[in-house]
Formats: sequence, C-alpha cells, structure tokens
Amino acid sequence: MKIFAYGIRDDEKPALEDWEKQNPEVTVEYTQELLTPETAKLAAGSDSAVVYQQLDYTKETLEALAAVGVKNMSLRNVGTDNIDFDAAKELGFNISNVPVYSPNAIAEHSMIQLSRLLRRTKPMDEKVAKHDLRWAPTIGREMRMQTVGVIGTGNIGRKAINILKGFGAKVIAFDKFPNKELQEEGLYVDTLDELFAQADAISLYVPGVPENHHLINKENIAKMKDGVVLVNVSRGNLVDVDAVIDGLNSGKVSDFAMDVYENEVGLFNEDWSGKEFPDPKIADLISRDNVLVTPHIAFYTTKAVDEMVHQSFDAAVSFAKGETPAIAVKF
Amino acid sequence: MKIFAYGIRDDEKPALEDWEKQNPEVTVEYTQELLTPETAKLAAGSDSAVVYQQLDYTKETLEALAAVGVKNMSLRNVGTDNIDFDAAKELGFNISNVPVYSPNAIAEHSMIQLSRLLRRTKPMDEKVAKHDLRWAPTIGREMRMQTVGVIGTGNIGRKAINILKGFGAKVIAFDKFPNKELQEEGLYVDTLDELFAQADAISLYVPGVPENHHLINKENIAKMKDGVVLVNVSRGNLVDVDAVIDGLNSGKVSDFAMDVYENEVGLFNEDWSGKEFPDPKIADLISRDNVLVTPHIAFYTTKAVDEMVHQSFDAAVSFAKGETPAIAVKF
Ligand SMILES: NC(=O)c1ccc[n+]([C@@H]2O[C@H](COP(=O)([O-])OP(=O)(O)OC[C@H]3O[C@@H](n4cnc5c(N)ncnc54)[C@H](O)[C@@H]3O)[C@@H](O)[C@H]2O)c1
Ligand SMILES: NC(=O)c1ccc[n+]([C@@H]2O[C@H](COP(=O)([O-])OP(=O)(O)OC[C@H]3O[C@@H](n4cnc5c(N)ncnc54)[C@H](O)[C@@H]3O)[C@@H](O)[C@H]2O)c1
Repeated sequence: MKIFAYGIRDDEKPALEDWEKQNPEVTVEYTQELLTPETAKLAAGSDSAVVYQQLDYTKETLEALAAVGVKNMSLRNVGTDNIDFDAAKELGFNISNVPVYSPNAIAEHSMIQLSRLLRRTKPMDEKVAKHDLRWAPTIGREMRMQTVGVIGTGNIGRKAINILKGFGAKVIAFDKFPNKELQEEGLYVDTLDELFAQADAISLYVPGVPENHHLINKENIAKMKDGVVLVNVSRGNLVDVDAVIDGLNSGKVSDFAMDVYENEVGLFNEDWSGKEFPDPKIADLISRDNVLVTPHIAFYTTKAVDEMVHQSFDAAVSFAKGETPAIAVKF
Repeated sequence: MKIFAYGIRDDEKPALEDWEKQNPEVTVEYTQELLTPETAKLAAGSDSAVVYQQLDYTKETLEALAAVGVKNMSLRNVGTDNIDFDAAKELGFNISNVPVYSPNAIAEHSMIQLSRLLRRTKPMDEKVAKHDLRWAPTIGREMRMQTVGVIGTGNIGRKAINILKGFGAKVIAFDKFPNKELQEEGLYVDTLDELFAQADAISLYVPGVPENHHLINKENIAKMKDGVVLVNVSRGNLVDVDAVIDGLNSGKVSDFAMDVYENEVGLFNEDWSGKEFPDPKIADLISRDNVLVTPHIAFYTTKAVDEMVHQSFDAAVSFAKGETPAIAVKF
C-alpha cells in the first residue's frame, strides 16, 4: 500500500516518522508542495492522498488527482469548506478530516493567556528584557481569586473548566445545550446576562455560527463588570474588536487575549516584519501592555500535530482497504 | 489605638484602606520611609509599629523605637533573619511576622512559567511584537502530556499539584516527610533519583536550608531525561546556575524558569536599565529564548499583599490589646 502526502511541514515530520514506524507495511512518500492540478500527478500509483491546505480543492484539482487513479483524500485538519463536494461526489471520492485532535491544546492556550494577563507577564517580561528588575508596580492577580465565565461547554470549554478548577478559580458557565455533569455540579447560570454581571474574566468556546456573530459587542460589554478580562481563542467573528478597543481605552475592559481575529485570513501566518503592516487595529492591539495577540496558534502543539498526522494516515489506510473510517466526511 | 506603619508602597495602599475601613476604631499613620534609628521617632505615641524591609532591625533601631514607647513590631513579611533578637528580648519587644500569606501566588507563578516554557511563549511573543505572524516553527507542548516532578509537597508544592491535575498532567512527587493524602493517591516516588529519571519537567518547593544547597547540580542534571524543563521559584541556593547553563548549552536542559537566584540580593528589585549590568550570567539567561527570569515576584499578587497587610495589622492590634496573636514570633 502507498500513501502520498502533500504540504508536509517540518514540524509534522517527527509524527510522520513515528507513524511510519508503526505501519511498516505502508510506503509513504511526501512533498512540501500543496495539492494543485499540477502537483496531483506526484500521487500517481498511490492508494490515498493526505492533504492540509487553505488552498481550494477545486473540481480541476480533484479531477487531476482522479486522473492518476487517486480517489481517497484524507485531510489532516478540520476545515472542509474549501472542498468542491459536488465534484468530489461526481468523481466518487472518499474524504476524511480530523474533527477532534486535541481540545486540550486550545483550552490550555486560553488559560495560559488568561493567567498571563492577570499576572501582567507582558509588562514584567519587558522590564526584565531591558534589565529593569524592580517588581513594583507590576503586581499580579491570582487565578484562584477570579470568577471566570466560560461561554460554551463543549470539548474545549470543558477542558478549560478543569484547568480553572485546578487553579481554584470560581467557574460559572453558560451553554445553550447544558452538559449534564456540569449541571449537577451547579456551574451553570441561567442567562448570558447573569454571566456578564458576575464574571471577573470571560472566555469563549462557542462556534462562529451566524447567531454568535459579535457575541462580545458594545451592548454586552456594558453589562460586564468594570475591569473585566476577555479571552477569545475560538472564532474571530465572535468579537467586535472595535468595541473591545473602546473598552480597553475606557478601562471597562482591563485585559484582552485573542488568538483569532475576524480579518485574520491573509493576515495571520504571514511575516509582516520590515513590511508595511496591513492592519492598524492589530498593530495597536499588539503594542498594548494589557493585550496578548497570537496568530491562531492555540491548536499548534506537538500532540495536536501528532493526532492530525496519525488520524489522517490511519483514515487513508482504511479508505485504501475499502473501509469507512469513523472520521469519513459524509457528503 | 494608634498604629504607625513604615515602608508602605503604593501597591499596599488599597489593602491598607480596606483594613482601615474594617477597623474604624484604630488610627493608622504611615510613611514610605523604612524604619531606622532616625525615623523611629515618627512612631511616637503609637501602640504598635508595622514594618517591611530588607534593612536590618539593629539594636540601635530597636532602642530608638523603644525610646518613643513602641515595643510592639509586626512584620508584613515572612523573613525575620534581619532582626537582632537579643536586643529585642532585652528591650521586651513583641514581634510577629506573616509566615503564610498566599501559597497560591507562588504555586500559580511556577505553573504559569512552566506552561509558558512548554508553549514557547517567549519566542512567539517576540515574533508577534515584530509583526511576524507565522506560527511555524514555534510549536508548543501540552501540559497534560508531561510527567511533572514536584520536589517538596508543603504549602506551595501541594497547590502546584492541584494546578497540574487541572491541566491533566501526570504528577510524581518527592518529599522527605510525605503528605498522607498524596501518599494515598500514590503520587510519591521513593527516591529523588526515580523522580529525576521519570520527569519531563521538575519544579522545586523545598526550603533553602543547607542540606538542600545545589539540589540541582551537574550530577543530578545528568540523571534527568534529555530535554528536561526546570523551574525554581523557591530559593536561589537550591540551583547551581552554572550547571543549568551547561545543560542549556548542551540541550540536556531544554528550558528553565527562575524567580530566585543565589546572588539576587542587591541585584533583584533594582533598575539596571541603561546602567552596566553587574551580573553577566543573569544577562545571558535573560537573553535566551528558552529561559524565563523573574526578579522574585512569585509572591507579588494583590491577594498576597492583602494578606500581608491585614494579618500584620491584625497582629499589631492584638499586641496593643496585650494579647498574643497566632503569628507572634517566639524568641
Ligand atoms: N484557536 C484555535 O486554534 C482553535 C482550534 C480548534 C477549535 N477552535 C474553536 O473553539 C471553539 C469551541 O470548539 P469545541 O470543539 O469546544 O466546540 P463544541 O462544538 O464541542 O462546543 C461548542 C459549544 O458551544 C455551545 N454553543 C453554541 N452557541 C452558543 C451560544 N450562543 N451560547 C452558548 N453556548 C453556545 C454548544 O452548545 C456547544 O456545547 C469553536 O469556535 C472552534 O472553532 C479554535
Ligand atoms: N518566590 C517567592 O516569592 C517565594 C515566596 C514564598 C516562599 N517561597 C519558597 O517556596 C518554598 C516552599 O515553601 P512552602 O511554604 O511550601 O514550604 P513548606 O515548609 O510548607 O514545605 C516545604 C516542604 O519541603 C520538604 N523538604 C525539605 N527538604 C526537602 C528535600 N531535601 N527533599 C524533599 N523534600 C524536602 C518538607 O518536608 C516540606 O514538606 C520555600 O523554599 C520558600 O522559601 C518563595
């Protein structure tokens, strides 16, 4: 059996080598190039292709892959909205993705960023970097003293709650579809407004569906405690960044961490150093002492990458054997 | 009743105002100056003095305080090794300190620093600061994937263990006097060598007594896993920094966080920016991507400062009433 993989990054190689060792009967070849109508022929003779890219999987691309005999395609990531499913259906493709790789990766990042904001590590680090070793006035707050509002108690939100409990923080949660266990623990408030009124810090773990667009906006920020701390590692469209900037300017919002941004496509995962920065809003946020910006890296851990590689290659093998892996995409 | 306080910092004022509100029958006066033979007379007419300083409480100082009628002295901090206890005894002083203010403050700091090292936030922050928004190759590791060795399971070590459990990390612990509950949980290994052999990361919570001098030295580092992560928020003399630097250079030690340093007196809590930095070793450590240096700030939270102020002022009131507070120092 042979699998051909596209777009393999250096950080994926340890996981790939590990998988190969566990599957000596499978021949793996790969390229750093992405899958395009031109590179499709590299997969000739393979049973399955494994892919990961923001580039569209167009009809043309899928046809080129089918033309060299490859109709099994396993994505190493979650997102499938860049696939032409009509063409895939017509050509008889099997497709899988990796819907859950490591909720902990994202939950941990959100809580590390929250704890850092409370502890004011950004200004403290800056002082130390310039050899100013005075501690005052950069005093921190403790996680355990906070009432933290968790919005969304799915895979990631629940992991975040465990971390908060370890710190001894008081957790209050809200979800449209409450989790039974958490309900029994009495963690839920009945309305978002209650959560806004009680929380010292708020972190989001809901999907970026239209009904959640700008969940954090001017109106809702006004309902929050003075000096609230906000964390968003979920989806950029959940937060009206202009409203948060107003809140930061007035002091209503004391600190803000964001790993996602409404206008992140074409901005994040690019190197703008020494070039004109295209977004003055992000430049402003990056420069603030009480704001932590990361470019959609919450998922980016060795464990998550490991899962993405292992699950996708396992699925590629299943398809090649004529089986349907649990993570096959239905379309 | 009147209490006079020395060396009050700006960050202590909210806690002090809070205490005054709760104790309207007590008159509080204070200065930012430290207690010396010269400033002692400021306390004239007070029932108790409240103090916090690295400056020695010499015989001369204590005599000057006694001369204006003040023989009750409540420290807002732990350390009492700068007090001339012979003179204090002779003069009939009552003295209290604050031995436990917030173990969480220190435990949280140590675990925030560990999680940051694993997540490589220092190089990622630096990239973002210069507008390089690419995530690769700055990949993180997850707390939950680590076996963390906790040395010392007293007040602070136990809080750190709770935080680690919240993250889902595997905890192994060592203490000369094991804690019963943790023993029942099966967290202890039998020897330090076992802990060194198994731990991906090691954090210290033992006192800086002579027998623990350079607990982390060349010999013990050699017993650790390749790529071990080390955290010291306890006492500077626990770690042979030269051995750690060698480990960092060879890659044996992958990351290091230190809040305390053997030669920290006269170095930490001073501003060296724009001046010649007196310690090339610390300058080297500060400049490394995989090292986090903080200047003995683990204790420095609003909650800890609150406790230090409230407990010391409460003790000062007790002394003034002729009572013996629980935190009175026996000498
Ligand atoms: N930054 C990253 O690298 C990264 C990586 C993966 C996922 N994410 C994001 O993290 C978020 C959470 O993911 P998950 O896997 O936990 O999702 P999930 O589907 O397991 O959980 C989402 C929860 O939100 C609840 N919900 C939806 N709308 C709500 C609303 N308006 N109010 C209250 N609750 C609501 C749902 O009932 C569900 O319980 C998603 O937005 C996802 O896109 C970010
Ligand atoms: N960085 C800061 O701001 C800061 C502030 C306060 C305290 N500290 C330091 O934190 C450390 C822990 O403080 P704590 O309040 O938890 O102390 P503690 O006395 O409650 O606990 C110390 C534990 O270490 C154990 N121990 C002593 N020597 C040992 C050895 N060689 N091997 C194994 N176990 C040993 C003891 O049995 C005890 O259980 C101390 O060094 C203290 O000075 C640092």
